[in-house]
Amino acid sequence: MENGSVAAIKPPGVTKITFLVMMGVAGCGKSTLGIAVAQALGWSFIEGDDLHPAKNIAKMAGGTPLNDDDRATWLASLREKMDTYRQIGQPAVVACSALKQKYRDMLDGPDLLYVYLRGSKATIRKRLDARAGHFMGPDMLQSQFDILEEPTGALVLDIEKNPQQLIGEILMAIELPNYQVGMVGLGVMGRNLAQNLQNHGWSVIGFDPAIDQAIVPTLRLASSPAELVASLQTPRKVFVMVPAGESVDEAIKGLLPALSAGDVIIDGGNTHFKDTQRRTEELSKQGILLIGSGVSGGESGALHGPSLMPGGNPNAWPLAQSMFESIAAKTSHGEACVSWMGKGGAGHYVKMVHNAIEYAMMQLTAEIYDLLHRGLGTNNTQVAAAFKQWNQGRLHGYLIELTAQVLTKQDPFTGGHLVDVIADQAAQKGTGKWASQDALDLAVAVPILNAGVEARILSANRELRGMLAKAYPNTTNSSNYSPTLDQIEEALYAAFLLAYAQGMEQIRAASSEYGWEINLANAVSVWRAGCIIRADILELLVQALQQPQSDRHLLLAPIIQSTLNSCSSSLRAVVSGGIERSIPMPAFASAIASFDSVRSATLPANLIQAQRDAFGAHTYQRVDIPGTFHSEW
Amino acid sequence: MENGSVAAIKPPGVTKITFLVMMGVAGCGKSTLGIAVAQALGWSFIEGDDLHPAKNIAKMAGGTPLNDDDRATWLASLREKMDTYRQIGQPAVVACSALKQKYRDMLDGPDLLYVYLRGSKATIRKRLDARAGHFMGPDMLQSQFDILEEPTGALVLDIEKNPQQLIGEILMAIELPNYQVGMVGLGVMGRNLAQNLQNHGWSVIGFDPAIDQAIVPTLRLASSPAELVASLQTPRKVFVMVPAGESVDEAIKGLLPALSAGDVIIDGGNTHFKDTQRRTEELSKQGILLIGSGVSGGESGALHGPSLMPGGNPNAWPLAQSMFESIAAKTSHGEACVSWMGKGGAGHYVKMVHNAIEYAMMQLTAEIYDLLHRGLGTNNTQVAAAFKQWNQGRLHGYLIELTAQVLTKQDPFTGGHLVDVIADQAAQKGTGKWASQDALDLAVAVPILNAGVEARILSANRELRGMLAKAYPNTTNSSNYSPTLDQIEEALYAAFLLAYAQGMEQIRAASSEYGWEINLANAVSVWRAGCIIRADILELLVQALQQPQSDRHLLLAPIIQSTLNSCSSSLRAVVSGGIERSIPMPAFASAIASFDSVRSATLPANLIQAQRDAFGAHTYQRVDIPGTFHSEW
Repeated sequence: MENGSVAAIKPPGVTKITFLVMMGVAGCGKSTLGIAVAQALGWSFIEGDDLHPAKNIAKMAGGTPLNDDDRATWLASLREKMDTYRQIGQPAVVACSALKQKYRDMLDGPDLLYVYLRGSKATIRKRLDARAGHFMGPDMLQSQFDILEEPTGALVLDIEKNPQQLIGEILMAIELPNYQVGMVGLGVMGRNLAQNLQNHGWSVIGFDPAIDQAIVPTLRLASSPAELVASLQTPRKVFVMVPAGESVDEAIKGLLPALSAGDVIIDGGNTHFKDTQRRTEELSKQGILLIGSGVSGGESGALHGPSLMPGGNPNAWPLAQSMFESIAAKTSHGEACVSWMGKGGAGHYVKMVHNAIEYAMMQLTAEIYDLLHRGLGTNNTQVAAAFKQWNQGRLHGYLIELTAQVLTKQDPFTGGHLVDVIADQAAQKGTGKWASQDALDLAVAVPILNAGVEARILSANRELRGMLAKAYPNTTNSSNYSPTLDQIEEALYAAFLLAYAQGMEQIRAASSEYGWEINLANAVSVWRAGCIIRADILELLVQALQQPQSDRHLLLAPIIQSTLNSCSSSLRAVVSGGIERSIPMPAFASAIASFDSVRSATLPANLIQAQRDAFGAHTYQRVDIPGTFHSEW
Repeated sequence: MENGSVAAIKPPGVTKITFLVMMGVAGCGKSTLGIAVAQALGWSFIEGDDLHPAKNIAKMAGGTPLNDDDRATWLASLREKMDTYRQIGQPAVVACSALKQKYRDMLDGPDLLYVYLRGSKATIRKRLDARAGHFMGPDMLQSQFDILEEPTGALVLDIEKNPQQLIGEILMAIELPNYQVGMVGLGVMGRNLAQNLQNHGWSVIGFDPAIDQAIVPTLRLASSPAELVASLQTPRKVFVMVPAGESVDEAIKGLLPALSAGDVIIDGGNTHFKDTQRRTEELSKQGILLIGSGVSGGESGALHGPSLMPGGNPNAWPLAQSMFESIAAKTSHGEACVSWMGKGGAGHYVKMVHNAIEYAMMQLTAEIYDLLHRGLGTNNTQVAAAFKQWNQGRLHGYLIELTAQVLTKQDPFTGGHLVDVIADQAAQKGTGKWASQDALDLAVAVPILNAGVEARILSANRELRGMLAKAYPNTTNSSNYSPTLDQIEEALYAAFLLAYAQGMEQIRAASSEYGWEINLANAVSVWRAGCIIRADILELLVQALQQPQSDRHLLLAPIIQSTLNSCSSSLRAVVSGGIERSIPMPAFASAIASFDSVRSATLPANLIQAQRDAFGAHTYQRVDIPGTFHSEW
């Protein structure tokens, strides 16, 4: 019976033990071991003796053994408490002597396992002698052995073994699972990622107090972070998929007590890279290896293969790499869209810039839609057709395809185009804003990316826009020069290229400033599938990054030069065409203005420096003589 | 002699006491009182007894009185130490018995005042009996009285009085000044502000360890923050004019021990408003009232009248208002350019946005210069003439005037125009960047202000621009439509107006978010003189703020409507003219794009919301049916 396998112990059909009842005579270690087991499992602990009514305690303290009636009252209270736990789904370890079968019958249930702590009278005598403050004196031990009926169907343990051994035997007996990955946070992203892991053969255990089994029928759920951790193979790997910010700190705090040095936590949320920097450092002091990973592709990507941008503690990567590679999106050549971005916040930084590029690309497509639709009178179907056609060429990519698709979608309420009844107020979640703010700190100019964020802000107040539209009626002449569809394609291609390039240069500057050594080609490569900004244009960028001078600036790569030089006059024409028709094209305007700025050998900043020196003695440099100068103006 | 006035005590021609020598027999309180006085003055303290050679100490410990030879060695050491202090300009309080005139002669100097602590033998006997650990036993007291020669020309104090009284008499005797304002930090801004205060009749004492008297000949300098504080009338008012950041915390830390509840600290640097929020709160817990004040106008403004934007602890304002008003710039109608902006960081916030508007206006003038000079081939003299002419009209303002001025300045090295040899790399100090970053947090769109910051970043890398200029040669056609000078004037006026309006709306949003209740008209009004963005256009804004609907948005004010409606086609033409000539006009492009955005009753953000819902189930609102919707696309 001892060390009996769980198959022999667990009643057939029972998949989950909710109660472990530690039983045996006084002094066998029910409470001590019970508390340790509860801790290991993250379960509650119920001290049966606490439920004795006062009269029982008085009787025992007076040296009188309890009779069966006394025990019946007590066991009924315990049973009641356990039923309460059952109702809320809270598993518990119970310490209760349960010496006779009829006592045990009062507590029994299909989700309960008795753990009988067996020891010789001599061993227990010795333990009781060493113990102080217990209300049952050692002289009552004999009466306990007298009434003890050893259980059947219980897990029997030899109390001579050390506690760690005993805990191990208990965890084995209740078939505590041996999962490969933990998933904390089972919102759509978390559960889709869990499903993706399962689809690739990884065994996953999940935890989320807000999610019940019905929502994730194929996922084993732990009752606590500690149980989740206890159910994982070591070194453990736990994904945290909760909203960025304090929730991540809370989730990590919940996991920490149960984790061991060498375990890996993966934060797959849209966390600010500075938080990831901080957490990587803090956790490494405790030997815990954090990965902060960008996960791109939305709900569908999480399920079918996201683009993954991991960074953090470099020691974590060898432990997690195969898992990341198996769940990542694959390119048409079968390459996994995942690469180690660098230490600290590198992964979340790349994801943040990815999102800023995404904002910019969406805004650029929206401006083209506005120019065609409102500016040139093209209807939705025709605009969709243009995007569809462009998607056959070098603009081929997810956002172009998606734009064609959403423009043709019918509205079930009105029968017209759905896009026409959608409120023109774009929402944002923060990553685009963070990217703009950090670009300012780094002194990197990313005007197209900023325009994407600003345009969403500008769109927010519809009512005010309605009032201002009345105050400022459109008086522009619509008979102006109209750009052709080919020119618009060239303009959009150039603007996309410039937006990517600005994002890449921001990543380069951040990598240098924060010491991450990010390989830009790796960043571009992982965006080729799974994520929203995937597009053929990325192949051009990969190529460009192999060309001379691209290590200095992407726009210096010959392949980018020839592309932009052939498209820039169309870009110019399209922006002018928009401005002349009062079509707001902030992202396109930023594209041409920043392009013309960086390719201007001279800029009028000399006037600004002159002004600054004239009013504030801020000094200036000269182009012809080295040094710092100040003039009396 | 007792309580003798300083006129009677101080040698003629001596303006500053460097040493106070506390003298008298053992037990009279030389060290105790000396230390307290040193603390009150922020001076050093020298314990004369510490300089006795070992043999003197042994003699005294053995009960043998010192002879004159013993004392001569000792006093020579003390004299040497005092001379060292003299050399570095460090004032000190010295404790030294100096019982005989010939001893005193050994130490004397024109910058030294003896403070004789006179007491009866009985009083001193009692004190010595109560004292332990001193190497001079009470039995030697009689020998001290025997050789004591009471001094002439000294300040004589009665040791029966309480220490606070005695300290007060000493401070009075050395004529410790009674200034109205303290100025900590005497860089150009600090000393010009001090001079401005003096010019308006305020008595000022300064402190800056890095500045010596030769640089500020008319300013009394304290030797320490404590001496500065001790020299001020209460409630004290201390300006802190040091670089923003940790230096401000350091300066405040230096002042705090000497300040009392109700005193006012004024931080007049370009401090981040969040630091001012924090410091206002922290200091108020100690009863210290912080004013964080924007000070605009550069060096010249500080001297002749700056525009002042105070905020912080509202209880400070009644104490500082008259001072602020007397030193502030005055409008042509004599109104002082200062108003209380609001609590906490309100003042520094308004100054930060002021700087962002300044960046934008400078960039807008630079773009016009570039369009005229590089785009249309107008030479510097002609461009200057245009600005000069514009300055006669509604564009009249400091930056327009300054632009005309700097464009005509001759270069002493080349004989050409100075502006032509100034390197076209604009520097920045941080406030513009902070404004853009906070606008993003507030979700306020300020694209023209952002463009001002971005343009400076874009200008920074001259070498890269040179390389990119070769990679992307200009192929645009210069035979395009050329905007006229009148159109350019209208465009510049409209762009200035839009830049001010964006800044005002940012202040409005911040005031609402942070609970400051800033009166926008006050902010505009204080910019009418003294500061760099002063211009006639502000009168238009003041007027606009009194008009209906301006509380909703500045662009809704009828006077702004009529102005912008008459200028917008020129704005449009100028931007197109620039784009077609490859002249980068990022601030102008942002002006027209953001203007067209906010006056668009519909924007293509509906497409963005459709895209977001299609790839991420982010949901959307409809224009026709209330609620939140999600579609399967």
